[in-house]
Amino acid sequence: MPTHDLTPLRHTLAHLLAAAVQELYPAAKRSIGPAIEHGFYYDFEFPNPIGEEDLPRIEKKMRELLPSWESFTRLEVTPQQARDAFADSPYKQELIAELESKGESISLYYSGPKDSIPDLSTLQATSYKLPTGFLDLCRGGHTEHPNKDIALDAFVLTHIAGAYWRGDETKPMLTRIYGLAFASKKELGAHRTMLEEAKRRDHKVLGPQLDLFVFSPLVGPGLPLWTPKGTTVRDLLDEFVWELRRRAGYQKVEIPHITKKDLYETSGHWDKFKEDLFRITTREGHEFAMKPMNCPHHTQIYARRPWSYRELPQRYANTTMVYRDEQSGELAGLSRVRSITQDDAHVFCRMTQVKDEFLKVWDIIHEFYGKFGFALQVHLSLHDPQAPEKYLGDESVWKQTEDLLRQVVREKGVHATEVPGEAAFYGPKLDFIATDSLGRQWQVATIQLDMNMPERFDLTCTNEKGEKERIVMIHAAVMGSIERFLSVAIEHFAGVLPTWLAPIQVRIIPVSEKHLDVARTRMQELVHQGIRAELDENNESVGKKIRLAETDKLPYAVVIGDKEVDGNTLAVRRHGGTDLGALSLEEFAKLVTSESSARTHGHEDGGQDAVTLPA
Amino acid sequence: MPTHDLTPLRHTLAHLLAAAVQELYPAAKRSIGPAIEHGFYYDFEFPNPIGEEDLPRIEKKMRELLPSWESFTRLEVTPQQARDAFADSPYKQELIAELESKGESISLYYSGPKDSIPDLSTLQATSYKLPTGFLDLCRGGHTEHPNKDIALDAFVLTHIAGAYWRGDETKPMLTRIYGLAFASKKELGAHRTMLEEAKRRDHKVLGPQLDLFVFSPLVGPGLPLWTPKGTTVRDLLDEFVWELRRRAGYQKVEIPHITKKDLYETSGHWDKFKEDLFRITTREGHEFAMKPMNCPHHTQIYARRPWSYRELPQRYANTTMVYRDEQSGELAGLSRVRSITQDDAHVFCRMTQVKDEFLKVWDIIHEFYGKFGFALQVHLSLHDPQAPEKYLGDESVWKQTEDLLRQVVREKGVHATEVPGEAAFYGPKLDFIATDSLGRQWQVATIQLDMNMPERFDLTCTNEKGEKERIVMIHAAVMGSIERFLSVAIEHFAGVLPTWLAPIQVRIIPVSEKHLDVARTRMQELVHQGIRAELDENNESVGKKIRLAETDKLPYAVVIGDKEVDGNTLAVRRHGGTDLGALSLEEFAKLVTSESSARTHGHEDGGQDAVTLPA
Repeated sequence: MPTHDLTPLRHTLAHLLAAAVQELYPAAKRSIGPAIEHGFYYDFEFPNPIGEEDLPRIEKKMRELLPSWESFTRLEVTPQQARDAFADSPYKQELIAELESKGESISLYYSGPKDSIPDLSTLQATSYKLPTGFLDLCRGGHTEHPNKDIALDAFVLTHIAGAYWRGDETKPMLTRIYGLAFASKKELGAHRTMLEEAKRRDHKVLGPQLDLFVFSPLVGPGLPLWTPKGTTVRDLLDEFVWELRRRAGYQKVEIPHITKKDLYETSGHWDKFKEDLFRITTREGHEFAMKPMNCPHHTQIYARRPWSYRELPQRYANTTMVYRDEQSGELAGLSRVRSITQDDAHVFCRMTQVKDEFLKVWDIIHEFYGKFGFALQVHLSLHDPQAPEKYLGDESVWKQTEDLLRQVVREKGVHATEVPGEAAFYGPKLDFIATDSLGRQWQVATIQLDMNMPERFDLTCTNEKGEKERIVMIHAAVMGSIERFLSVAIEHFAGVLPTWLAPIQVRIIPVSEKHLDVARTRMQELVHQGIRAELDENNESVGKKIRLAETDKLPYAVVIGDKEVDGNTLAVRRHGGTDLGALSLEEFAKLVTSESSARTHGHEDGGQDAVTLPA
Repeated sequence: MPTHDLTPLRHTLAHLLAAAVQELYPAAKRSIGPAIEHGFYYDFEFPNPIGEEDLPRIEKKMRELLPSWESFTRLEVTPQQARDAFADSPYKQELIAELESKGESISLYYSGPKDSIPDLSTLQATSYKLPTGFLDLCRGGHTEHPNKDIALDAFVLTHIAGAYWRGDETKPMLTRIYGLAFASKKELGAHRTMLEEAKRRDHKVLGPQLDLFVFSPLVGPGLPLWTPKGTTVRDLLDEFVWELRRRAGYQKVEIPHITKKDLYETSGHWDKFKEDLFRITTREGHEFAMKPMNCPHHTQIYARRPWSYRELPQRYANTTMVYRDEQSGELAGLSRVRSITQDDAHVFCRMTQVKDEFLKVWDIIHEFYGKFGFALQVHLSLHDPQAPEKYLGDESVWKQTEDLLRQVVREKGVHATEVPGEAAFYGPKLDFIATDSLGRQWQVATIQLDMNMPERFDLTCTNEKGEKERIVMIHAAVMGSIERFLSVAIEHFAGVLPTWLAPIQVRIIPVSEKHLDVARTRMQELVHQGIRAELDENNESVGKKIRLAETDKLPYAVVIGDKEVDGNTLAVRRHGGTDLGALSLEEFAKLVTSESSARTHGHEDGGQDAVTLPA
């Protein structure tokens, strides 16, 4: 990952793209074009549609223009001058009108030869079409000397997409051209390699190929159906989280997936998330909703009886599905679904217990993600003191709770990035960001402190003085969503799940039909020892069966031929090709069992080691 | 349970009730009054409301009248005579008009002194008010000599309830008077004892008292929230079923709780159950539904790829909630809920595999229910050959599949009651009826053969000849609904769950504060061995704490005092009072662990032995 800021370079390239398009398609109307992560884009209204086959020509034109871009110069103009300059674009006109109405200064940016910078005082409407160089309405933020700052081979146009003007589907659909840009050809190449690798690892392809999940057109998009193998993986993940939580004193609870709207009116979710809910009107005319989160239901389990402070914390864990009425266009494999399995947990405790409970969840999160080889960064998401209206609770409570979370971070001796304005409206939180084997970052677990819902549901305990005391809640998901976690994990491992997580750990391959009975017996012995083994009964060559086990991404393939039958051994081969030679069944079972219980990889190419990381 | 048919006796008492009401409330209008299980009722329109405080007077009048009921005699009449006889009751008029329009014979029944049987030929409208005896419109089915056949002390009026005329809420609300009736006072007494015992065991009271589940007015009726203890019990039940299923080759799958309506249009559920579904219109205007059953979703997992006959059966198990839009008035504790957890399973197989698969599920069901001490009866639910229009598939297929199920029953060497007309529309089934410790019967598990859904979803395998072959489906729930099963089990055990199923198995009771540390250590040692133990830290007397453990229905209470600390023992007491004396921690842990793994009771009064059964 580049460590210096490439935003000005990428922003400059958006201008260059617009300049090239203007030369090649003089009738195209420009709108806006910012820098984005890894590159840039620009949105145009083309008189006739263009396709991706046109991108090389545009890219070539950009390379032709770039050497002449010696300067990037700011020109402050009057609103009228701006309007005249972009008379051909209704989009620019709209932007100019907005700037004018806000009374903000309006600037044009010139890019081109040093000696052709236009003289503002002499500019006339007709002369905005410069004989050389390029003008665009812009706030600034470019490289100063594009021809020196940008390498000709460090950018590329990648694809086009439709994009509504201002993201509003009632407005015209524009054509967005995307590009990638880095400081050097080498960095660009590394990024493109990573993208190709990511494509090769796409969980939307690998998931069904490994028979983990499937979508049915009858059930609908965003609603994955989990096969036996996929269910095994889900359950293994969930059991791991539960093992960690049980040690920390959590208890399982269970709740229905619907509720009267009264619950969400009390919690405040009805007002805030009504549009995202699957809502139901019953035959008796009552309004119900499918749960989009579990916390309001869990408050009602806590609220079932009075509690003494001695009985706190109450820690409730519940792996269960929640539902969100996502738009069809937003759905993507397991990354964005309508039925989301949360490994949810809520701690009901006193303010004095918050720090300890946070530390416990912190440990669970680190132990869990550590087993996958994910590096974690921590963000401390704070309130924005400049916008107190966005939050519940007064400044002193925020100071107290944020200091509590700082103490947690300090106690752990790690660096946390403080991000003001990123707190939930009800309290500050710790967000954990995982870096996967391709260097991509994913926000995963969070621990949130909530002073709001206990207030709304009047949750209390009786304290040492016999008084009712308001408690607080901690929201603590580890995977967050099993679907999303699995989408990340499948790609992280390129589908080669570690031994403990692989739905099938071992495939037994008989060399020929005469070895089939012994092979079946070995398989049954392994299954009897709790190992997820299967038998390849296909009438194919051993070589082909071994290659298939590799393609199916199984941790182990075990070959049984004459030698193995005679010697009462197994010929064991790890995924990736390592030959472990002849092992006794006991030795092999011990190997698999120990990898399962220790939750280690067991094969070389399952984790991040096997990947060519971008520079 | 009485073995002779008491229906005529109970039907006669319905007449006697009407006769008594007519004497006491001459303006009351009669409607109908049948025999029911355990007794009878009669529906009246009273000019002024009556209350349960009026029942003793009515009952007294019944006893006064009964000795004079020497005869019960049928009198065939013309429609006009019938209309004249019941001129005062619009309900009788409606019934008479119906009989007339169908051209059926109309009969009145006289009950009273032998010598006062009215002479039909001389009957006039005015003379229907007999000076002695009683007339009612009736089809017959009474005892012939009520005064001899019915014991004065073998019946009782129990309660009143509102009931719409003909069960139609748009029609008048009548007053229904209920009575119980048996062959003898002893049988009546046994039944009333059973009812009182059932009331004492009411799961709606015991469930929250034992902290297993709770209802929240914000979440709504019919939507139980499961506490940590209740969730433990649910999970233990589910694990038991899963243990049995895994042995039989089942695999777990998982599905979302919603679907596009397309799935149910294909399955046929949309037409048939639309009104019972929680239906959703998404923000994009699509129609979705919460699943009322899991089979259609499971077909889509099967349908994800082609199958060879060698890969069948595919057996999918899935414990998951289904939802039904029940009317509020129908909801009752866990017996009838809106969110129902099914321990569902579907087998996809060839017709030739059906028998073996049925036998496997049969064994699972018997092993499961056997552990609870439930006796099971089997019903073979067949199609009605007189009404072929009610079923899918032709007569030969029905003959084949019903014979298959008969073979299953025969192979098991048990008696099955054949019930024509009770099959599902898609195929025949085996229904299992459990008798609980109070002698009550509950329909529990079913195994159903389905030739319909595979047809609708075009489910096939490739057979030995390389041809596509239509498969069949087997629906096989063991508990059916965890909620309903638990409602039965809680009452069956009177809340004293067997050791393996008790959410807390052991409570450690320190004699005084100085024994608290040792008690806590013992508790932790037990928990470390996988035993669900807790510590009573309350500052109460030992006697009171032991009584509380009894009230809380814990399988074991363990007292730790000076003697136990010195001797390094535990003073162990079973629920119900048996003192097991001083055991070492190892001995006690072994006892609890073996009861858990064998799933035996572990205390004397948990099962059916402790109950006074009705004669």
